[in-house]
Amino acid sequence: MTNTAVLTQHTFETIEWTPDGVVMIDQTRLPRETVFVTCRDYIEVADAIRNMIIRGAPAIGVAAAMGVAIGALQSDNLDADMPVICETLAKTRPTAVNLFWAIDRMKSVYASVRHLSLDQVRERLVTEAQKVRDEDIAINESIGRHGAPLVPDGKTVLTHCNAGALATAGFGTALGVIRAAVQAGKKIDVFADETRPFLQGTRLTAWELQRDGIETTIITDNMAGHFLKSGRIGCVVVGADRIAANGDVANKIGTYSVAVLAKENHVPFYVAAPISTLDLTLSSGDQIPIEERAAKEVTEVRGISIAPEGIKVANPAFDVTPNRYISGIITERGVATAPYTESLRRLAKNA
Amino acid sequence: MTNTAVLTQHTFETIEWTPDGVVMIDQTRLPRETVFVTCRDYIEVADAIRNMIIRGAPAIGVAAAMGVAIGALQSDNLDADMPVICETLAKTRPTAVNLFWAIDRMKSVYASVRHLSLDQVRERLVTEAQKVRDEDIAINESIGRHGAPLVPDGKTVLTHCNAGALATAGFGTALGVIRAAVQAGKKIDVFADETRPFLQGTRLTAWELQRDGIETTIITDNMAGHFLKSGRIGCVVVGADRIAANGDVANKIGTYSVAVLAKENHVPFYVAAPISTLDLTLSSGDQIPIEERAAKEVTEVRGISIAPEGIKVANPAFDVTPNRYISGIITERGVATAPYTESLRRLAKNA
Repeated sequence: MTNTAVLTQHTFETIEWTPDGVVMIDQTRLPRETVFVTCRDYIEVADAIRNMIIRGAPAIGVAAAMGVAIGALQSDNLDADMPVICETLAKTRPTAVNLFWAIDRMKSVYASVRHLSLDQVRERLVTEAQKVRDEDIAINESIGRHGAPLVPDGKTVLTHCNAGALATAGFGTALGVIRAAVQAGKKIDVFADETRPFLQGTRLTAWELQRDGIETTIITDNMAGHFLKSGRIGCVVVGADRIAANGDVANKIGTYSVAVLAKENHVPFYVAAPISTLDLTLSSGDQIPIEERAAKEVTEVRGISIAPEGIKVANPAFDVTPNRYISGIITERGVATAPYTESLRRLAKNA
Repeated sequence: MTNTAVLTQHTFETIEWTPDGVVMIDQTRLPRETVFVTCRDYIEVADAIRNMIIRGAPAIGVAAAMGVAIGALQSDNLDADMPVICETLAKTRPTAVNLFWAIDRMKSVYASVRHLSLDQVRERLVTEAQKVRDEDIAINESIGRHGAPLVPDGKTVLTHCNAGALATAGFGTALGVIRAAVQAGKKIDVFADETRPFLQGTRLTAWELQRDGIETTIITDNMAGHFLKSGRIGCVVVGADRIAANGDVANKIGTYSVAVLAKENHVPFYVAAPISTLDLTLSSGDQIPIEERAAKEVTEVRGISIAPEGIKVANPAFDVTPNRYISGIITERGVATAPYTESLRRLAKNA
């Protein structure tokens, strides 16, 4: 295990506001190609979210805020257009609550400044969108500080999907905890579930951590149990797309399985997520809407068919992990533990 | 759910003895292409096993027996060549015990007839290899008869990897139980884990069951837990590569995870396998050798790279499911239940 991580190698930006539009690294083409796409209007931002050019709950939130801002810049009648812009962005993906959180935040700003001139309103919305992005990086660094002490030294950290710099404005939530643990001098390495069907683990987590010099091994999703049983995994850290008031966590499909297997093998299972991922309006995870995506994500890999023609496919993009499998929820304000209804409510109030 | 399965559509042969050599359906090219390969000597049979042109514990056993027979046909000095032939075939893959069982069976036959003429010995070995194949089909039908009553009616059966006609000489072990349940009139459908990295579920199980008209849905491996939690899965049925004396089961990587998730959700988990899969010389599954296969099975799909260059990979091909997760082991002689050390020993003796 090497700990000579050069974290400053980490020079790409997941999403940026530029004079040309919203620039994102195209996550459908990594790791093969490092291509940046520029979304020049809010429709293009919505398409980028829907098609997973950008993905990961916090990054989707930033993209949505920037989508509202670019929509506002191109509108001459904000009272008429803002609801359409917000609705279009809100309809892209149903599960990650950060999307709705960011849109609501932009709506609130708009409501508070709409008496100003059009130029002033636009400027205020653009500033807010950039603030959502900048805050997200700071939040992730704080999540890392709270999470790093929980990571057992000298062992392997297992993660699922990509809750890294690519899933956020930078640094990452789950991978932020790993980065902070490495920065703190812990001798750890990472096992990354490949995370079918979209392969976020193989394509994104492995790419990110390799750039940082953090030793990473790819496994297929169905190997996680085998390695959890083997004793080499010190803890599991994953991100979240929505957390209900009782601590049930919606995250990438397969998270529930990893959580059950971790508990069965007495390995701590942590969720790392910003407070904006909390949805205290839902009493339990059963109420979280689960997105069903296209069959061809499962039947094709890079456009090549791997399945018999006409076969049925199920493709839920997320699952819900009941709170009883979760050892702690690591936020920028501290670590919530059971009973979650109280601990999460307390953290949410501590603004 | 449709139960109009036309099981007679099932016309392909997994492996056959022909005058030209041992003919196998090439399982690396399904479902895209239905190609048959002819192995003309024992080296080609060994390569076919190693490269997974044929796979599945019982099918590997049949292939090994036929490999010994074709080797004998081409040898003029059996006393000198038989050990080399058997050793070459035995070194192809380490986990499935049926391979060693079949080779031992051929060795025993050779020992009992080696006083006869070379032609007579060769004929006896060819006959024995064909008998291994024919018996396997009958064994699977018997496994199906014993297993069918265990399958809950009106629900979905979850299976992992391919323990079907393609994994055997025909009919299948786990899929034999499913076929027998359908033949018995049960209204069931099947969820097939895709089974990374080799995709036996998507490529082989889905192909086989689709041909039989049994309604089948592909899921990625990491969805199994989600659907086990959902309540729609009535039982899990999988095959086995080696079963220790205490009922611990080595099977395709990911089986352990499915077993834990089944138990957590109170879904019965069955293993279907012939008695030849028992290895009573091993007291527990910890002693079963687990094959590690090439990294590129994980980093490439149909020759196309999906991972960052130079990333580390783990690729254990099997895992071990401890007996406490197993509701029953369905054999051609009946269903073993806990305590397995006694029930399996009893079945093994009941020849």
